[in-house]
Amino acid sequence: MLRNDQLDEWDRENFFHPSTHLAEFARGNVPNRVIKTGSGCHITDRDGVKLLDAFAGLYCVNVGYGRPEISDAIAEQAKELAYYHAYVGHGTEASITLAKMVLDRAPGNMSKVYFGLSGSDANETNVKLVWYYNNILGRPEKKKIISRWRGYHGSGLMTGSLTGLELFHKAFDLPLAQVIHTEAPYYYRRADVSMSEEAFVQHCVDELEALIEREGADTIGAFIGEPALGTGGLVPPPAGYWPAIQAVLKKHDILLIADEVVTGFGRLGSMFGSFHYGIEPDLITIAKGLTSAYAPLSGTIVSDKMWKVLEEGTDKLGPIGHGWTYSAHPIGAAAGVANLELIDKLNLVENAGTVGAYFKNALNEAVGAHANVGEVRGEGLLCAVEFVQDRDKRAFFDASEKVGARVASALLEEGVIARAMPQGDIIGFAPPFCMTQAEADEVAGKLGKAVKSVLG
Amino acid sequence: MLRNDQLDEWDRENFFHPSTHLAEFARGNVPNRVIKTGSGCHITDRDGVKLLDAFAGLYCVNVGYGRPEISDAIAEQAKELAYYHAYVGHGTEASITLAKMVLDRAPGNMSKVYFGLSGSDANETNVKLVWYYNNILGRPEKKKIISRWRGYHGSGLMTGSLTGLELFHKAFDLPLAQVIHTEAPYYYRRADVSMSEEAFVQHCVDELEALIEREGADTIGAFIGEPALGTGGLVPPPAGYWPAIQAVLKKHDILLIADEVVTGFGRLGSMFGSFHYGIEPDLITIAKGLTSAYAPLSGTIVSDKMWKVLEEGTDKLGPIGHGWTYSAHPIGAAAGVANLELIDKLNLVENAGTVGAYFKNALNEAVGAHANVGEVRGEGLLCAVEFVQDRDKRAFFDASEKVGARVASALLEEGVIARAMPQGDIIGFAPPFCMTQAEADEVAGKLGKAVKSVLG
Ligand SMILES: Cc1ncc(COP(=O)(O)O)c(C=O)c1O
Ligand SMILES: Cc1ncc(COP(=O)(O)O)c(C=O)c1O
Repeated sequence: MLRNDQLDEWDRENFFHPSTHLAEFARGNVPNRVIKTGSGCHITDRDGVKLLDAFAGLYCVNVGYGRPEISDAIAEQAKELAYYHAYVGHGTEASITLAKMVLDRAPGNMSKVYFGLSGSDANETNVKLVWYYNNILGRPEKKKIISRWRGYHGSGLMTGSLTGLELFHKAFDLPLAQVIHTEAPYYYRRADVSMSEEAFVQHCVDELEALIEREGADTIGAFIGEPALGTGGLVPPPAGYWPAIQAVLKKHDILLIADEVVTGFGRLGSMFGSFHYGIEPDLITIAKGLTSAYAPLSGTIVSDKMWKVLEEGTDKLGPIGHGWTYSAHPIGAAAGVANLELIDKLNLVENAGTVGAYFKNALNEAVGAHANVGEVRGEGLLCAVEFVQDRDKRAFFDASEKVGARVASALLEEGVIARAMPQGDIIGFAPPFCMTQAEADEVAGKLGKAVKSVLG
Repeated sequence: MLRNDQLDEWDRENFFHPSTHLAEFARGNVPNRVIKTGSGCHITDRDGVKLLDAFAGLYCVNVGYGRPEISDAIAEQAKELAYYHAYVGHGTEASITLAKMVLDRAPGNMSKVYFGLSGSDANETNVKLVWYYNNILGRPEKKKIISRWRGYHGSGLMTGSLTGLELFHKAFDLPLAQVIHTEAPYYYRRADVSMSEEAFVQHCVDELEALIEREGADTIGAFIGEPALGTGGLVPPPAGYWPAIQAVLKKHDILLIADEVVTGFGRLGSMFGSFHYGIEPDLITIAKGLTSAYAPLSGTIVSDKMWKVLEEGTDKLGPIGHGWTYSAHPIGAAAGVANLELIDKLNLVENAGTVGAYFKNALNEAVGAHANVGEVRGEGLLCAVEFVQDRDKRAFFDASEKVGARVASALLEEGVIARAMPQGDIIGFAPPFCMTQAEADEVAGKLGKAVKSVLG
């Protein structure tokens, strides 16, 4: 794949790519790919290779590539006013309008939105707010954050600690002391295969109760979770999980942070995962779907209950010491407004639900019966196929066999981008919401071929 | 200032503004301002009020507002490809080109650039890299970060810890345990007024040595500092400070992070503050000036020495577990390329130096002799006026008198935006690099009036 021209050379000489094997990349053993343009579910690189992107970038280009409604809004905003800050009551028409649009869509108990840039920084804001909140309430000890193994919440020091995946901890001294982890809501990977789904939910509840007991409820500020696990494996929760967990949190006065970076604005076929599963969060993290990645923008939606305490805090202490230079950046805000309007106009939330169901079915038909397919799962346009060495014994492959990565490579050879998830042999699909049934069939069919070529 | 229409209402109902007194804002006691457009050094709000922005947003709109070269580049990129990720060797022509342009401008020992969104997340990346580096080198204890009191490095949990300002610590339980602070290089505020500048530098060195001695050099990974203090007071370092500090760090094998978020790309009249003061950093933080804020983009520039170890790390451990979805976002990259080209074309770095010198002189002439002006200082287009109750005794005002904020308000009444810095009675100026001498005179003259109206 090495192409001996200027961009390639500049790339390897100067560019520190995220999540990359740096030494192999420098040696030229990891291919690079320069993306040129995109339209709908497809991207095209500068060699003219066109690929069907069934992961929507990093599950973020929810409305699809090349939407003039959004690029025009960005262009207009850039021309009129590319930047002014949002500190101390400043704003732009776009950022204020977007704040209103977000609250109109959010659960009824939500009050305000703070805008950041990335999902990681929004979760960072969340933790700061939880700490501030409990300080104002005179509970200085109530600060630990419970996260789940296999959760993904970012890759900063605190947010990488919240993340419950080995790759993001090792060699970085994470998790930090303030973060503790509990059982992943991942029924297929339950330790005791004989356990029913109901019993597994009870097991998750028991584990959480035991952790709270061990640490002391008065040391625990919040619990963070994705409505459906994302990077940890694309796993919808077992039936009844959220109401059961929520009851425990309420009992111990522990705040609930719903990380809706992936699920927010429609991916599961509902506007928020919180609606989908009956979650009543105190804080909601949003990012990707807020702008469909056309410009960086994230957010923290704050509930009435927490907001009252934050106001009380500034009456006691003065202006809140929190802000990023690019909070509520006008370009991101303009992209967000156009994106949410487009989602409504094209009925994309509904489409994510219906095409998602169709797609899961197609995946099942294509590979569901294969001897090495342990599970085909999904909710809306968040689907996954998990590979196992032995389906009946539910025996996993050894990680060194890299089965997931090999299937993803074979699928790429067929012209389809899916993502080999970082922990386990799991191929993830999270295409743009505008995916058609024909494209769903194409992806499923090509996955069938790819699986056959790798696993026979 | 309250304007009883829809945007005002939406704003107060939905928008969580950074660094704001939330309760006063909700009650309508903090004015809001909706910015509509800008050109050169001026912004205009939607009531038609035009202001001379002598702080360039949050010292970031370095090339000035309304530059079609940059907004056109953003528009084009948005149309062609608003987003694709940069993970595992992916990129765009814009992001690769910008990486090359950054390295071309950076000190010669720099090797690669990692792109983030905010100055805060870039410093977060820095700390992760320092920890990873020392883990790979088998020095798991060498992890603490030394920062200076009055430094500003962001407002996350780790980066707010690096920040050495009260406002960003209180009620947030910061600093975290891994961060320790040393003396601010702020000669005007030296404890012992009789100390010479030279003796004060020695004092900073002694304090640093004593801290390292106390903690143990083998527990300290890095030292972070802005070449010239920014938010902590806009203070150029005392003569000889950096070489002296650097010698201590080298002796103890402590990495040096130069936070050039404010100083990078020209503000001091040099391309980097590191050139300006003879600093040889291992990591450089960049943000604001990289895109002049036209789109969010930040970066961590990594030295050859550290890069070699990072590569070694991935050979040992596989792909590095670090990345933001929006790392190297194409819109930010396109803005960055156009911005750096424009800075060159218009000779703006040089202009920052020459107009900066002219401006400091004008400020001095306007208020330098006032009985309540303790110091007029600056380097390039980073200037400040510090107010004191008694100039000869160098007696500061009580914070409750809010002298700095009152002067800033009076200046705003004159149509000029400057910033009352958060700690001390300091008015900061950091205008766009295209400021003319006539505009410099205007700002200085209006400051004179404002000071007179507040302090007589
Ligand atoms: C659920 C969730 N939270 C947070 C993040 C972090 O977002 P970002 O990469 O924008 O920092 C991600 C990114 O994939 C995510 O999936
Ligand atoms: C020196 C310095 N570092 C870091 C930051 C943080 O940048 P951001 O606000 O983009 O997170 C700032 C912001 O003012 C800064 O001045």
